Amino acid sequence: MSLIEDLNWRHAVKAYDSTKKVSEEDLNKILEAARLAPTSSGLQPFRLIVVENQELKEKMMSGAFNPEVMRDSSHVLVFAAWDSYSNEKIDKVYNHHTDVRNLPRGRFSSYTDMIKDLYNAQTPEQHFAHTARQTYIALGLAMAQAAELKVDSTPAEGFNNEVVDEILGLKELGLKSVTLLYLGYRDSENDYLDHMKKVRIPMEEFIIRK
Amino acid sequence: MSLIEDLNWRHAVKAYDSTKKVSEEDLNKILEAARLAPTSSGLQPFRLIVVENQELKEKMMSGAFNPEVMRDSSHVLVFAAWDSYSNEKIDKVYNHHTDVRNLPRGRFSSYTDMIKDLYNAQTPEQHFAHTARQTYIALGLAMAQAAELKVDSTPAEGFNNEVVDEILGLKELGLKSVTLLYLGYRDSENDYLDHMKKVRIPMEEFIIRK
Repeated sequence: MSLIEDLNWRHAVKAYDSTKKVSEEDLNKILEAARLAPTSSGLQPFRLIVVENQELKEKMMSGAFNPEVMRDSSHVLVFAAWDSYSNEKIDKVYNHHTDVRNLPRGRFSSYTDMIKDLYNAQTPEQHFAHTARQTYIALGLAMAQAAELKVDSTPAEGFNNEVVDEILGLKELGLKSVTLLYLGYRDSENDYLDHMKKVRIPMEEFIIRK
Repeated sequence: MSLIEDLNWRHAVKAYDSTKKVSEEDLNKILEAARLAPTSSGLQPFRLIVVENQELKEKMMSGAFNPEVMRDSSHVLVFAAWDSYSNEKIDKVYNHHTDVRNLPRGRFSSYTDMIKDLYNAQTPEQHFAHTARQTYIALGLAMAQAAELKVDSTPAEGFNNEVVDEILGLKELGLKSVTLLYLGYRDSENDYLDHMKKVRIPMEEFIIRK
């Protein structure tokens, strides 16, 4: 199957079969696609929290827009972005880059000095606005990977960030939840979207050629 | 090739061969992947501007971080998000949804009333923060589709948004540029990244299991 076929196959599933679990093998491929997602300056300024524990899922449901979708999913992925950039975080990433590539540390210092100057002139709110955006690239690729494996998924912004951050102890990790991705297998009878045609803006309206 | 193989193949190309053009067939598949990207409430609150004209590209280079990468690319895709939500925009999308699905208009009105209330209580700045995030899902899927076709790409946030918005007349369309995606074919000799190992955070650091 091609990516376009996979994207046509998927939809945001609205009801899961709670008896079916995503295998570790498939889960790991979905996580790997998210890990391979490109990010600004390669900083990967977010982490993925994988919640499989049913009790934790049910706590996280408080304030969610579709709580029963979360409850019945196999796994909940929480895309949680850095609350801020810092010189230390940037150095840690680039030291890893140079170490893996057998290059001297500091090989990219003119670049890292530039991005440090950029971020040091910004507020933590500006940092988070930027780190949060990066998570959406990984969210999209995780959905595409799930679809390739015929694993269903539902992206969700409609949840209580404060509840999720508190339950998962994200603040202490310097992270803030941005989006969720529910994974599992659709309950076709109860998923009203399963029987509806996919609708997108027509290409001639979506694209402007110059 | 699987998505993971495609993601391992790609990198943010730093030098293009300006003599090679992406075919219309491949370009259309990349645009289609972006069009199929899921978005919040299915609103697709952005448009894709495809710039092939060399003169326009060279005007857009002013203030770009890697101007010669833009110049030598085959096409520049501009992901431009709605500057704000409105009841009219939401109704237009959902009227299209119901029309395509042969459902009566207003079939989803309890949902659209809810999202209208949500957005009507927000500022245009909050709207744009949200519409901009959605573009990153499509950006990721466009890169994945390019990689599947062995078309190179470079995502770019480092450009002068005001210059690009002005040159493309985006303000009049209610749009603001968010990211660019350069497409083309790498100039392997001059692309320093082409010969470097891909580096990502180790899985055990990227993932937190609960």
